[in-house]
Amino acid sequence: MVSGASDGFTPLNAFDGALLQAGIGNTNIVKMSSILPPGCRQISPIALPPEALVPAAYATLISDVPGEIISAGVAVALPEDQNQNGLIMEFSAKGERRKIEEMVRNMAVEGMKFRGWKIKDLKSIAIRYRIKRIGAVLAAVVLWGQ
Amino acid sequence: MVSGASDGFTPLNAFDGALLQAGIGNTNIVKMSSILPPGCRQISPIALPPEALVPAAYATLISDVPGEIISAGVAVALPEDQNQNGLIMEFSAKGERRKIEEMVRNMAVEGMKFRGWKIKDLKSIAIRYRIKRIGAVLAAVVLWGQ
Amino acid sequence: MVSGASDGFTPLNAFDGALLQAGIGNTNIVKMSSILPPGCRQISPIALPPEALVPAAYATLISDVPGEIISAGVAVALPEDQNQNGLIMEFSAKGERRKIEEMVRNMAVEGMKFRGWKIKDLKSIAIRYRIKRIGAVLAAVVLWGQ
Repeated sequence: MVSGASDGFTPLNAFDGALLQAGIGNTNIVKMSSILPPGCRQISPIALPPEALVPAAYATLISDVPGEIISAGVAVALPEDQNQNGLIMEFSAKGERRKIEEMVRNMAVEGMKFRGWKIKDLKSIAIRYRIKRIGAVLAAVVLWGQ
Repeated sequence: MVSGASDGFTPLNAFDGALLQAGIGNTNIVKMSSILPPGCRQISPIALPPEALVPAAYATLISDVPGEIISAGVAVALPEDQNQNGLIMEFSAKGERRKIEEMVRNMAVEGMKFRGWKIKDLKSIAIRYRIKRIGAVLAAVVLWGQ
Repeated sequence: MVSGASDGFTPLNAFDGALLQAGIGNTNIVKMSSILPPGCRQISPIALPPEALVPAAYATLISDVPGEIISAGVAVALPEDQNQNGLIMEFSAKGERRKIEEMVRNMAVEGMKFRGWKIKDLKSIAIRYRIKRIGAVLAAVVLWGQ
């Protein structure tokens, strides 16, 4: 689970800067929907090889309003039944980190409730950023197999 | 070919619910552009393994206007020449299922005409939903190899 | 590096036409973020097999304003240090090709400056299109391994 934020020359440069600050800016990310495969375990962020195509679920937001505060967060709900998958939720909006992180955690709880599955553990990460000129926030769950 | 619709706690929860109702909510979906590889055949929806990364072309729409009717559809045009690929088209909009399904079928016909290819068969699926609070519709063509 | 533009029956048909004109319209494209793996070399556009899932970074824009001029471009910055990855940038907007291509080249330069990396070579491609009814432009960097 990683997060980053950055200003940039354009919206895409700001997004690139946020990926870099999150530690995933020098590898190709492919957006996936929001499932955590069974048997995953959390590892500390590692350097991804630049030739990889890495699946990730992420929340991002870009703003060009100087002074505006934006936040992005992701939450992972792990099921009690280890044969079931976990659920990732992503959320980004204007506002402070605490509010966005609480929302994305609630989203993961609701998603598991919708499945009728019990939650064993709920993890989350979120980041907040005040725009200078053009800025982006990013929070991501990156899948990586060894 | 699958479809689903659902209300949810947030737009992403509604989308997650639509994926679940379509039977593809517990596996990671990666959005692809709209080509059906040669040699594919249609199978009944199956349970996808939760650890897979599954390519799919899909139409989706989310609304937070209670009472609004939204629909999503996908069409697949199969070519007469079995060495050529088929074409998938996706469409979603406000309105009734019949209208959206007709439109997406026309889109697939136009796409094949654009290629100068003859159509052997034209399949489609569509779904309609009336929003309670925040709802989503989804129609998808999922590729799966065994 | 490819580009294409087309009118179409709907926005998605126009996009499909632009992919076809770019030579990548009969294979599935998966959108990736903007990294060029080390060791890549530029090849002339080739026919991609219709059963492939091909990663690409691309800029696209669709408009339904007849007479409007839209452009899309991509730039690739190659690093001096061959162990590092290159950077792809994408940009599309209303306006003439020259302006959009200059912008996307600047974006790639800024992205490499952000990394503190020196540029060995900077390549770009862009396309401009005047909308008839509903039209799309597309410029892409497609990764393909043999």
